[in-house]
Amino acid sequence: MANDILKYRNVSVHPDEILVVPGGKVVLFFAILMFGESGAEILYPNPSFPIYQSVIDFSGARAVPIPLLEKNGFAFSADEVLNLITEKTTLIIINSPANPTGGTVPKSEIDKLVAGLQEFPHVAILSDEIYSRICYDEEHTTLLAYPEIRDRLILLDGWSKTYAMTGWRLGYSVWPQQLIEPAQRLAINCHSCVNTPAQYGAIAAIEGPQDFVAEMNRAFLTRRDYLVNALNTIEDVRCTLPHGAFYAFPNIIQTGKSAQQIQNELLNDHFVATVAGTSFGTLGEGYLRLSYAASLDDLKVAVYRLNEYCSTSSLQTYN
Amino acid sequence: MANDILKYRNVSVHPDEILVVPGGKVVLFFAILMFGESGAEILYPNPSFPIYQSVIDFSGARAVPIPLLEKNGFAFSADEVLNLITEKTTLIIINSPANPTGGTVPKSEIDKLVAGLQEFPHVAILSDEIYSRICYDEEHTTLLAYPEIRDRLILLDGWSKTYAMTGWRLGYSVWPQQLIEPAQRLAINCHSCVNTPAQYGAIAAIEGPQDFVAEMNRAFLTRRDYLVNALNTIEDVRCTLPHGAFYAFPNIIQTGKSAQQIQNELLNDHFVATVAGTSFGTLGEGYLRLSYAASLDDLKVAVYRLNEYCSTSSLQTYN
Repeated sequence: MANDILKYRNVSVHPDEILVVPGGKVVLFFAILMFGESGAEILYPNPSFPIYQSVIDFSGARAVPIPLLEKNGFAFSADEVLNLITEKTTLIIINSPANPTGGTVPKSEIDKLVAGLQEFPHVAILSDEIYSRICYDEEHTTLLAYPEIRDRLILLDGWSKTYAMTGWRLGYSVWPQQLIEPAQRLAINCHSCVNTPAQYGAIAAIEGPQDFVAEMNRAFLTRRDYLVNALNTIEDVRCTLPHGAFYAFPNIIQTGKSAQQIQNELLNDHFVATVAGTSFGTLGEGYLRLSYAASLDDLKVAVYRLNEYCSTSSLQTYN
Repeated sequence: MANDILKYRNVSVHPDEILVVPGGKVVLFFAILMFGESGAEILYPNPSFPIYQSVIDFSGARAVPIPLLEKNGFAFSADEVLNLITEKTTLIIINSPANPTGGTVPKSEIDKLVAGLQEFPHVAILSDEIYSRICYDEEHTTLLAYPEIRDRLILLDGWSKTYAMTGWRLGYSVWPQQLIEPAQRLAINCHSCVNTPAQYGAIAAIEGPQDFVAEMNRAFLTRRDYLVNALNTIEDVRCTLPHGAFYAFPNIIQTGKSAQQIQNELLNDHFVATVAGTSFGTLGEGYLRLSYAASLDDLKVAVYRLNEYCSTSSLQTYN
């Protein structure tokens, strides 16, 4: 794994700083158990993977949303993140490329965030980089490449997305020296280790040929371009170009319906599965998440039905 | 799994009350996260699996030991457990057959405990029955068979011991109706689910032929009888007959050495791996844990070397 990190992130990590776990979520769970408690504040993106807020709430800490806005390509503004930090802030969670928006944070904003964090040495950072290998338009910027925050950075990545190994439950994490031992202790007290067949699968994935990762990314790129263009031809829908992951996050505010209503009607009446933006936080209202980890043919059917749904809805509105 | 519980415990459980997890420890971890907090008290056996005390300490609760004594065959006394309960007690952990002693609790004591618990409706029970299928001298008594505590009983069992599937990381649990949903939420927020290949392995194990479980138990019984008899012929060592699991827990107080010292000397000078009783709690001083999940031939070599070690030690003491 250390070799893999050197290869894809160009950062040297000692194997003793790495913890392999049964799914990326376990890293979140452990990190938030460490930093979350009553009186603490944890910053997390909104909209985002719902587990962030859920585990922060469970820990007793206050979940403080970092707004991710469409007008910024769903990237955070470093200044805004820094402004949210208080004395009580213990941890900042960031996620680029992001679920559910597909947004990526430009290197310049990350540079600015890391520079600003020098003023807040009491704050740890959890960088969820589970989509690190699925970037279309620019190289992935890893937080691990900033030595000035290495002593308080927890990196999360895994096999699920890069190798389509979701069902294997395989994540890995890099911890600062003073946290790796507590992280290992939590692992030993909770799940012990990742199961043996999965460990061999993990080795095979990282040591085997990597061509199909590029091949899969080309397929994702084709689908992204098709899907985003197609969405933008639908009346009442507009979609920002996502730069990573395999999600499109179209704005559906003009339909005049809630995200939840559209999600339900699309599923029940048109057999298209989407997820309401509100499933990812309050700031997801007015958006739908579409996953393009589906074939181009299926995406075409989905777009056809979505078009049909929007036309019918409009007709009903005008009647 | 519900069928399996009906078959081996003769108790009807709804599939919705069952949670399959990546290792039995996860059940402990979740249950203690639920019931442990500053100000609470959790009762746990001593000596016992070290994770109990470790996770209780992590939760902020006070770990209150239930002493397991050699003179009682390492079974708890129901009266003693009931006497330890206070208003602050939230959870009682029991484990029969037990690690590290191989002790089992007689049905009469469990009857008495359950009857006494009627006076303490605020206390939940976590019954770690991971060795339920490895019982030699009498049938396993499951806490699940007592309907009067079903609404506050968490049952832990798994594949590791019965099917020698330790490396698969596979446990299961039965939760009371009001706790299954929080338990599922913890699972979804932590590890999501058990990995797919392991799930198929789990099904194959419980649906496949069970003859080898009996066969393995016969082998364990032969080893137990050999080992315990052999230990009792060694000067300064005496060993109570364990009725379950695959551990012997000989008393080595007469050697005049600490358990830790004997463990280290046996390992480093005689190449016999044992575990000091103190690894399982303060009340483990004066004892060693020997696992007989090893071949009879290996056990014979171990006994020969242990004998040699004890004779040499005695000589050194007398010189």
